[in-house]
Amino acid sequence: MTHRNYAIIGTGALGGFYGARLQKAGLEVNFLLRSDYELVKKQGLVIESPEGDFTLPQVRAYHEARKMPQCDVVIVALKTTQNHLLPKILPLLLKDNGVVLVLQNGLNAEPQIAKIVGAERVIGGLCFLCSYKVRPGYICHLDYGTITLGEYGQDYKPLGITDRLHEIAKDFKRANIPIEMSEDLLLSRWKKLVWNIPYNGLSVILNARTDELMANSNTLTLVEEIMAEVIAAAKSCDRIIPDSFISDMLEHTHKMKPYRTSMKIDYDESRPLEVEAIFGNPMRVAQQAGVKLPQIEVLYRMLKFVDAQRQEAERTRRLLGVQ
Amino acid sequence: MTHRNYAIIGTGALGGFYGARLQKAGLEVNFLLRSDYELVKKQGLVIESPEGDFTLPQVRAYHEARKMPQCDVVIVALKTTQNHLLPKILPLLLKDNGVVLVLQNGLNAEPQIAKIVGAERVIGGLCFLCSYKVRPGYICHLDYGTITLGEYGQDYKPLGITDRLHEIAKDFKRANIPIEMSEDLLLSRWKKLVWNIPYNGLSVILNARTDELMANSNTLTLVEEIMAEVIAAAKSCDRIIPDSFISDMLEHTHKMKPYRTSMKIDYDESRPLEVEAIFGNPMRVAQQAGVKLPQIEVLYRMLKFVDAQRQEAERTRRLLGVQ
Repeated sequence: MTHRNYAIIGTGALGGFYGARLQKAGLEVNFLLRSDYELVKKQGLVIESPEGDFTLPQVRAYHEARKMPQCDVVIVALKTTQNHLLPKILPLLLKDNGVVLVLQNGLNAEPQIAKIVGAERVIGGLCFLCSYKVRPGYICHLDYGTITLGEYGQDYKPLGITDRLHEIAKDFKRANIPIEMSEDLLLSRWKKLVWNIPYNGLSVILNARTDELMANSNTLTLVEEIMAEVIAAAKSCDRIIPDSFISDMLEHTHKMKPYRTSMKIDYDESRPLEVEAIFGNPMRVAQQAGVKLPQIEVLYRMLKFVDAQRQEAERTRRLLGVQ
Repeated sequence: MTHRNYAIIGTGALGGFYGARLQKAGLEVNFLLRSDYELVKKQGLVIESPEGDFTLPQVRAYHEARKMPQCDVVIVALKTTQNHLLPKILPLLLKDNGVVLVLQNGLNAEPQIAKIVGAERVIGGLCFLCSYKVRPGYICHLDYGTITLGEYGQDYKPLGITDRLHEIAKDFKRANIPIEMSEDLLLSRWKKLVWNIPYNGLSVILNARTDELMANSNTLTLVEEIMAEVIAAAKSCDRIIPDSFISDMLEHTHKMKPYRTSMKIDYDESRPLEVEAIFGNPMRVAQQAGVKLPQIEVLYRMLKFVDAQRQEAERTRRLLGVQ
């Protein structure tokens, strides 16, 4: 595989950014789009970034998976709330020896996708990226961008670092995307959840930025306690995260610019929230191991409520034809 | 004590309503007011109620405790967030053999007040009242109104039903206020918290009425789980509430009209929230007995955050002179 071609499923703030970077580095990238198809087909993609703005006047844009070429690497960059679409899409796009790279949030997207394409064709990736879609075809990259890649073994069995992981990492590095490699994908996923669960949840429920949550002693305590619950949940899967990781994360967040979490952005944009991937799946995994997460459960149920209310309001708005 | 005279500290939606009813029944009632003093002194009180509207063109209105006559029964109808004012007020108002009737929410107002006037002069009351102040001197009674009276013994030791409790009950019944009497004030307070903690907390955090919280399976589960935590907390004080009380409360709430909780009304009106009385004190009492309430703690800390944010916004608003 020296000239791998790529497919991007979900050309939003994340898939659009990484796909454009890969294409700019000279790789063949095929973008699957839905609502933005016409515009991106015509005008291409624009990326605004502190690392340099650039425009791709022409991209390989597709509206239907069955018209796309089969690819070596199919990147799933949809929100997990759209994963019901994957059983129809993935088998069409994947070369016989191709792999699916899952750049999604939370837990358990890989085993779901493994059921479609087989565990041996799944690689996971955790994105530490701050970007948003300004309008169709126009993506603003704000900060960060590192991807942690890890092989997926059945039931998240750690598989170490493989040759194909190195190969894919090479493509991304060529596109100036910082890459780290994980020997244990599940451990990496839990570590990311230590940050994501408290900040995503509290930012939506309390309508707050990270700096506001850090400045109040009560929410700061809540963040710490919820982080400890995530660490307990990871332990129920035999993944050990030291308690010192909590103070590392707090220190890191203190130093960050005031940050609106990705779930808060989804909420503000009236998009469905990834409650199951980020909260429900971790909760159930721990529960099956006999570990209760009472505080995360509060966040989960509150988010399910606000998500349902928001989606109901959205349906009404669409029915009434209000813009 | 055949002609008991009364003082009402805090002439709002609750104190104004009960005080007006007592005066209408022929009792001497002295009202202590702050911001509404001028208007109520001039125009009296208006009560709108499904049980009959009425106007009291003249009431004994006072702006300063030291100008009021000493009373047999001093009713504390302030929000608990104002209790720092009581050490200066209560000693001025209480006859030598007078009693303080504490009509406040949550836990531990009685022991605080016992420190000022002595435990033997404290009686507790739990109000099941739905009313609000439309404007100064104008109170709208919507529904309910029963008061549960109970003697306060040092550290909430149950004292049974005393003669003086019967005497005060007689005055209230004369004023058409339904009265129940409790042999164990602390048990009654915990039972009320079984309802108040989940509904008050969730209604503020999720911006929801009771019917909305009941209609969503996730918030319904949360309500049940939080009620179970309150029952566990009560048990830590040797007060046994049967689990069946949860289904009774849920059924009762299902039958209620869509209801905006008192804490939600406070929040919507930008008033300080009674977070310590309703959440903080129960939590600390249980904690001292070694019982953790992780879900109530989430509500407590979230409410402390939104209360601080709201009060900060209020201060800014006042500084800028915005109406």
